[in-house]
Amino acid sequence: MIIGLMGFGTIGAGVYELAKSRKDLTVRYVLDIREIGIPEWTTRAEDLFEDKEVDTVIEVMGGLHPAYEFVAAALKAGKNVVTANKYLVATYYDELTALAKEQDVAFRCTAAVGGGISWLTSLERVRRLEPVVALEGIMNGTTNYILTNMAKNGLSFETALSEAQALGYAEADPSADIDGLDVMHKLLLSANIAFDVSLDPKEIDVFGIRNITDDDVWTFKSRHLTCKLLARAFQKNGKTAVFVQPTLLSESALTASVPTNFNLITYDTAFTGKMSYYGQGAGRYPTAANVVQDCLDLLSGVTKFYADAADKVAVDNSVAKYQYYLRTTADTKALAAEKWGDGVLTKEMSVAEMAAFAEKAKAEDPRIFVAALKNEE
Amino acid sequence: MIIGLMGFGTIGAGVYELAKSRKDLTVRYVLDIREIGIPEWTTRAEDLFEDKEVDTVIEVMGGLHPAYEFVAAALKAGKNVVTANKYLVATYYDELTALAKEQDVAFRCTAAVGGGISWLTSLERVRRLEPVVALEGIMNGTTNYILTNMAKNGLSFETALSEAQALGYAEADPSADIDGLDVMHKLLLSANIAFDVSLDPKEIDVFGIRNITDDDVWTFKSRHLTCKLLARAFQKNGKTAVFVQPTLLSESALTASVPTNFNLITYDTAFTGKMSYYGQGAGRYPTAANVVQDCLDLLSGVTKFYADAADKVAVDNSVAKYQYYLRTTADTKALAAEKWGDGVLTKEMSVAEMAAFAEKAKAEDPRIFVAALKNEE
Repeated sequence: MIIGLMGFGTIGAGVYELAKSRKDLTVRYVLDIREIGIPEWTTRAEDLFEDKEVDTVIEVMGGLHPAYEFVAAALKAGKNVVTANKYLVATYYDELTALAKEQDVAFRCTAAVGGGISWLTSLERVRRLEPVVALEGIMNGTTNYILTNMAKNGLSFETALSEAQALGYAEADPSADIDGLDVMHKLLLSANIAFDVSLDPKEIDVFGIRNITDDDVWTFKSRHLTCKLLARAFQKNGKTAVFVQPTLLSESALTASVPTNFNLITYDTAFTGKMSYYGQGAGRYPTAANVVQDCLDLLSGVTKFYADAADKVAVDNSVAKYQYYLRTTADTKALAAEKWGDGVLTKEMSVAEMAAFAEKAKAEDPRIFVAALKNEE
Repeated sequence: MIIGLMGFGTIGAGVYELAKSRKDLTVRYVLDIREIGIPEWTTRAEDLFEDKEVDTVIEVMGGLHPAYEFVAAALKAGKNVVTANKYLVATYYDELTALAKEQDVAFRCTAAVGGGISWLTSLERVRRLEPVVALEGIMNGTTNYILTNMAKNGLSFETALSEAQALGYAEADPSADIDGLDVMHKLLLSANIAFDVSLDPKEIDVFGIRNITDDDVWTFKSRHLTCKLLARAFQKNGKTAVFVQPTLLSESALTASVPTNFNLITYDTAFTGKMSYYGQGAGRYPTAANVVQDCLDLLSGVTKFYADAADKVAVDNSVAKYQYYLRTTADTKALAAEKWGDGVLTKEMSVAEMAAFAEKAKAEDPRIFVAALKNEE
């Protein structure tokens, strides 16, 4: 396999190193605007597309532009594309999967969800035999690191975030992580592939952890509950529910024990039931290894995307119901069932209802925080 | 794919049902000595081998004989073989893998380890890129059900075992489960594939849970420890350690939270680090689904066993060191570091040393129980 590698940051350098150690992979070009001091370096993306011997382009630049233009150009030039860029694939899902199909080339993005976990590949495999009925999990290491540290060590959100930044788990601008957008992109990709659909990112309800306080965490702890940022999607009676929300789990639940920056992602299928994958959700080598594994899959004959179809399907979060911990200065009288610390526990309500309430309340109280109380299953 | 199915018990009937629902799989024969009332029924194994159109034989009869003779005959007749029979593959590993290679047919047994978890397939996949340095996990649902029930509900071993039998998790003769032999076979297969070796089952040290008492469990609980039956294998400095032992984990460890009959199995690799698989370790549909997934892998072009080589390698458990909880009427003065409930906590010693001690002590005290104290990693 002759590879054109786009991006030489943390992941790119890892991919380069792993590929270099193998006889079956040759990195011919490495595209980067910075001078990176390796013989394969180029600043001209066209070098990759015009070289007829390059069969596979790996995109690990991140961001939407020019990643989108480069990936589209690579597919149009008849190259297989492997990417770790969830934001890109979630945003241009229909365009890129259709283009790959049209050009009869492979388009793979296993490293985009779960870092080192071969999650999308496993979803594709189980779907050969069984319908997937639900997905759920911890899909973001940064927020799990923050929540774990708050619960175990009594840190404030700000201190836990600073620590995550110092360790390189969180970016200087942590918004995409703490507001749940990173998780949303990963969930959208997973649900698209699991259910053979194409979802609109704007329809997915997302509650983040930006506003969680140490008092909130204390309130949960005193009730033997642990807060985790969970992504969830399911199909039931023809409806598709897809949402991201802080969720209160029994302390003794397996998901509650997921430490530091690890991910635990689960699918539930018609025959096998629940199957979970647990591993490092990010990091140079885990992510780079999944990128290289995608290349090895291409070598073994894979020539396509994970799912064939992509029906436009509307998200309907009125079918997912929870009691919520709700802390806000807005009026909660109509919703509250009992007082919980600084907030209330609401009556059972749907994710869609809570999203509508929170959207309105946010204008009055930007510090509002909500967390769903996990119903026993 | 034209299939000859051998065995129509719990798993066999599940495979039959799943295969029937697919256009790409045809079950032409079902071998069973009992009259099973389906049109594909036969009592003549030769029917499967002599039919040139049968390309794949599925063996889910269980036991060593005549399963071994039938599987060998199928391979010799040029059929691919898929089996869920860990005892068979662990016992005749060299013979069967060599025979498959010689005949250039596929030999797959994903359902033999982890029930519904695609564990062996995942091991094969990760090995394409990275050396596996260690394996560890809960590989037996029956014993995990018993241990969970003793810890959570304060049951005696006998009551917990009876409940497991009533629920169909444990067999009438539960020896293979509670003495750790079932786990040993699964560990041997996993280690053979992970490390490209062929291990001798007799060299693997195995401590079971037959003798655990509710007082032992209480002693662990008072120290915030949870006892799980763990399989472990690792390679270090050219040595290969492979053993099965009750292991005391911190209550808050992820592995300590594995409930009922679930399995959690982990590999640790050079680049990606630890990756765990969590799912139902047994049951009709999980196991049958993995058998059928093996068939789908064959359809997609897989034509071999999981690992190519199989060097004879000696187990050396002198390199694995633990402190042990040891309860016995035999003399423990030379080993003991402190008193723990009915037993003692030993000084650090190797698995090999503890195995030698236990072997000798058993003559005097058949009720001896040992559990390793998991060292922090």
